[in-house]
This record gives sequence, structure tokens and C-alpha cells, in this order.
Amino acid sequence: MNDTNRQWLLVRRPQGPITPDCFRLDETVIPEIGDGEILVRNHYLSLDPYMRGRLDAGKSYAVPQKLDEVMQGGTVGEVVASRNPAFAVGDKVLAMFGWQLYGKSDGNAVMKLDADRIPIQAYLGRVGMPGITGWYGLNRIIEPREGETVVVSAASGAVGSVVGQLARLKGCRVVGIAGGSEKCRAVVEEFGFDACVDYKAGKLHADLKAAAPDGVDGYFDNVGGEVLDAVLGRMNTFGRIAICGLISGYDGGAMPINEFRSLLINRLKVQGFIVSDHMSMWPQARSELLELAASGTLRYRESVVQGIEAAPEALMGLLKGRNFGKQLVRLID
Amino acid sequence: MNDTNRQWLLVRRPQGPITPDCFRLDETVIPEIGDGEILVRNHYLSLDPYMRGRLDAGKSYAVPQKLDEVMQGGTVGEVVASRNPAFAVGDKVLAMFGWQLYGKSDGNAVMKLDADRIPIQAYLGRVGMPGITGWYGLNRIIEPREGETVVVSAASGAVGSVVGQLARLKGCRVVGIAGGSEKCRAVVEEFGFDACVDYKAGKLHADLKAAAPDGVDGYFDNVGGEVLDAVLGRMNTFGRIAICGLISGYDGGAMPINEFRSLLINRLKVQGFIVSDHMSMWPQARSELLELAASGTLRYRESVVQGIEAAPEALMGLLKGRNFGKQLVRLID
Repeated sequence: MNDTNRQWLLVRRPQGPITPDCFRLDETVIPEIGDGEILVRNHYLSLDPYMRGRLDAGKSYAVPQKLDEVMQGGTVGEVVASRNPAFAVGDKVLAMFGWQLYGKSDGNAVMKLDADRIPIQAYLGRVGMPGITGWYGLNRIIEPREGETVVVSAASGAVGSVVGQLARLKGCRVVGIAGGSEKCRAVVEEFGFDACVDYKAGKLHADLKAAAPDGVDGYFDNVGGEVLDAVLGRMNTFGRIAICGLISGYDGGAMPINEFRSLLINRLKVQGFIVSDHMSMWPQARSELLELAASGTLRYRESVVQGIEAAPEALMGLLKGRNFGKQLVRLID
Repeated sequence: MNDTNRQWLLVRRPQGPITPDCFRLDETVIPEIGDGEILVRNHYLSLDPYMRGRLDAGKSYAVPQKLDEVMQGGTVGEVVASRNPAFAVGDKVLAMFGWQLYGKSDGNAVMKLDADRIPIQAYLGRVGMPGITGWYGLNRIIEPREGETVVVSAASGAVGSVVGQLARLKGCRVVGIAGGSEKCRAVVEEFGFDACVDYKAGKLHADLKAAAPDGVDGYFDNVGGEVLDAVLGRMNTFGRIAICGLISGYDGGAMPINEFRSLLINRLKVQGFIVSDHMSMWPQARSELLELAASGTLRYRESVVQGIEAAPEALMGLLKGRNFGKQLVRLID
């Protein structure tokens, strides 16, 4: 147990892509706990694309991160001190303690985890927010039927890899879109997609047509931009598109959509969503995902960087697609 | 009763905007009817924006109009000869006889009209396909709640004027978008909208903000393009957009959408639809619209041109927004 807390603060908002000078790493004392409170040593910090939106002051789907405060983020860790009868020292918990080694709480919004069935960092990925995001968009917006073709962008990521595997379990033909041949190979060989299109190969339209010869019935979009345009041009009548992320536009560049008329021609439903709007679904989704993950049916990849120092660089890499699967920061030695 | 039939054929497909040489007016004999058939003298021909899509050979939401065949279109008229026991001479009927003076049918897809409650041309407008289109998009996609703000583009048109009036009856604040001060005045004074924005006035964003100070919860779009972009920028969280038409792009020009990210930021549902996909709704919709129209609650405007000769020019004008309300061609003297 360290004798100091370390925490990353946001000290300036990025103009375009994030730069390292947006953050400052501070050393502070480990907080004292009062009656009813717990102290948690965080083991893993989750890095997620939504964090980019929070760095801007303007309107995003996420509430802005405040300047000179600890960067927000999901964490899993272990209770190291407790004056709350609901928690014992040694309990493993999920919380939003942010980019720091220690978190203090009255127990609200802290969830105790069953660490015997699955490593606790799974609750930041396939059994956590990213997995539930995929579950919701697929089951509640795309609502795929057996035999339909479902396309997923950022297919090797924490969300996309879950979407594709769930769609395969429903009997769909599943096509991933990912950046680079290595990711594409893993999408097919590890995650079991029927095909994967490498958008960096320079022939997105032709490759998508070959991979989805019967057109596209459902599209789970994490990226927007030209990838979205290409899929719009391949949608079947009455197709459904879940807009989960528009990562290609997160740095503030223009992102025109040219194939919008496909919505009318093909009578598409296109729906943006944020999983935190649908908390009532989380228990069902998490329970289903936990079963699939614990049994090994649901495959995954993690990119883990070591030490809290590495968090800003890892977030920058995530936004450029340098990660592979769920991006985590390991906060213990 | 004329002794010849006259009919417009499509003889070439437009490249960009429609030109008069796309059509040819032929004189032919009035068709003879066989056993089980009826002959109808058409009184009114309906002109509608969807017709533009049918003129292209490529994929549209409408099946392409065949070359060298009579232009398709909705008509109302009177049975002038019948060898079908279900129809008597003098019956008023709605059918798809197209751009010609006479139509022959075995009675399939011909609907007898109650001509006592409302003029028969209403069945081509507010009590017909355009009215039902408005009813469906509003009630089945936008699903407005009392107190919400609903925006309608092409607000003075056959569809838009119905959408706005139905939304007002549901207790919504209703804002129209139309081209020109004369149309805008009528949208407010005749159709009872709360406000109307003139998109030709050159300050669409500011005017829309003033007219919808609480943002927009539902948008019924007939035009696409920059009007759609402007409304996307004003949508409230969980807003719904019904895409009924993209008339600004019908002539083949590019129509990029720049504010697509609003779908994610505001968790919007955007859905394209074609009313002919939903025939099971038509009886309920028509019945409700007929009651509102017959009682005078549902106001309307018609632009009527005289004589079949005028049809191509009137369609060109409709696509440029020169009409006001439902565009009809009167085929009788």
C-alpha cells in the first residue's frame, strides 16, 4: 500500500486532438474516511472513447469534465478500509473513482463484485459498460433476426467485439469493420465473425460489398464518417442502425454524411443512444453477459498499460485506434 | 364526354431537373371495356413529389416509371361505363389511372368515394395519400406528447399542413418551415401553426431558434439538406425525426448532412418511411382525417392547374416549391 494517492487532473481543454499538456499528475494524501465511508485501492482504470467528449466544454452526450478536477472514469479495486457495514476490507468493487490510485465513498454507486467467476477487470469491459452498450444497441435498437446480416465498426474493440459475438449467437451473418489486417484477422479467428473489412486497405466499398453480399440489415456504428457512409450505401430495406459512437469526429473535424438519402430510400431507422440512459436494462444485460463470459463463450481482448503515469498516452492511443480490445490501465504492481 | 383519350408518356429520363421534353402528349382512342370492367373519366390528377424519384432508372423508394408508358399518378373521377356489378355509372372513384383523361379497370384498387361529405379531390390530398402520410409520420414515428415542440418543413404543402394541424390538436407547439412570407403567413393564419420560419429569408438558424425557444422534440422532414441540418442543431434529447421526403436532393445534387452528430449527442431516433409500406393503417388514418376535414377542422389549400396539357409544367413547379398546398390538375372543363 502506497502512502500517497496519485491522480490525474484535467488542466486544459484540448483544441482538436488531445495533447499531454491537457493533464497534470498530482500527488496527494490518501483520504481519511469518516463514519459510513469506505476507502478503495483501485486496481484497474477503464479508458473509453466517451471520455473525449467530456473534455470539451460544449454540448456532448457526456457532462463536461471540470477543469482542475480528477479525471472521471470507471475503476475496479479492493476495499482497504471500511466504516460502512455493507462493505468489508477485501471486498472487490466497481465504482467511478476516476484516474487515481485511491477512492473514497459512502458506498453509493459502488457495486460489490463476485471475483470468483471472472477477473474483476471484466466488469470494466465485456461484463461492464462496454458490453452492456453492445447488448443494448443490438437487442433494443437493431433487434436482429436469424439470417440477417449485421455489420459492426470498431469490431475489435470492447463494444464491437461483444456486439458481433451476440449477433452470431442469434444466427446472424456478422461482418466486422476494423483498422488493419491484424485486427481483422483476430475479429474473424478469435471473435468468430463471418468476415472483417479492413477500412485502412483503401477499398472499403468493394470489400464491404463482398463481405455482405446480401446487403446489411443491422449496423452498429462506433465511428461515423466515411465508414458510416459506406454502410449506408449497402443497407437493405427496413434496416436499423444503432449510433453508439462517432469516434472519427471526436476531435472536432467536420464529418459530413453524404448517403443520408438511404434513410428514405430504404426506410431505415437510425437511433443514437447512450447506455447510461437505460439503467433499468443493466441487471438483465450484465447477467446475460456474465454467463457468456464466465463460460468462455464470450471471447475478448484487452490492451493493458502499466501504471497510472501511462493513462493520458493510452487514452490518446485509444482515440487513434492503437488499442486492441478493451483498454485498461493497471494501477497495482 | 370527349371522343378521344389524351395521355402523357415519359419518353426520356431527366438528367438533373425535369425538362418538358421528358414527356409527350398522345391522343388515343377511349378504351373499350370488357366483361367485369369499368371506364372512368378522370376529374383530377394528383401531382406529388414522389413522382420525381420514379423518373430515374436507379434505385429510389419508388419503382421506376417505365419509358414510353403513361405517367403514373393518383386520380379521382366518375364511372362513365360499367360492366362490373360493383360499380354503377355515376359512381365517384379513387384510382391510379395516371396522367390521362380516361382509365379502364377491373375494379381492383379502385375505391368508391362518398362524394356527399367532401369534394372528391380531397381524397388526393388531406383525406388521401398526402394526409395519411402526415398522419403516419406524426402518430407512428414522432409520437408527440402534449407540450412538446414539433417542427414541419414544407409546412404549407399537402403533407406538412396536415402534420402541423394534427400536432396542434395534440397540444404541441407547432413551428412550420416554408419558402416565402406569403406561405409563412398562411401557415400561421390559415393552418393555425404557432410560428413559421421562412427559409428563404437567409437567417434560418436564428429564426428557428426564435420560433422554437425550447428546442425541437419532433421534426417531420419533407426537404432534407440545409433545413434538416438546421433543425438537427436544435433537437432536444430523445427527439424523433420522421424522414418523409428529401425534395432538396431529388434532382440528383449532393446533399451532405453536417449535423449528424446530433443523433448521438441527443440520442435521436431518425426514421425514413413510405406510407405505402403501411397500408394496414390507412383505414384508421383516412377515417380520422375524413372526420376532421368534413367538419372543417382540418384546413387546406389547393393549387389547381386547368387541363391535362398543364401537368408537366405543374410538376416542375411543385418540385421547385411554386405550388401552395395540394397540387392538382383539373381534367374536366
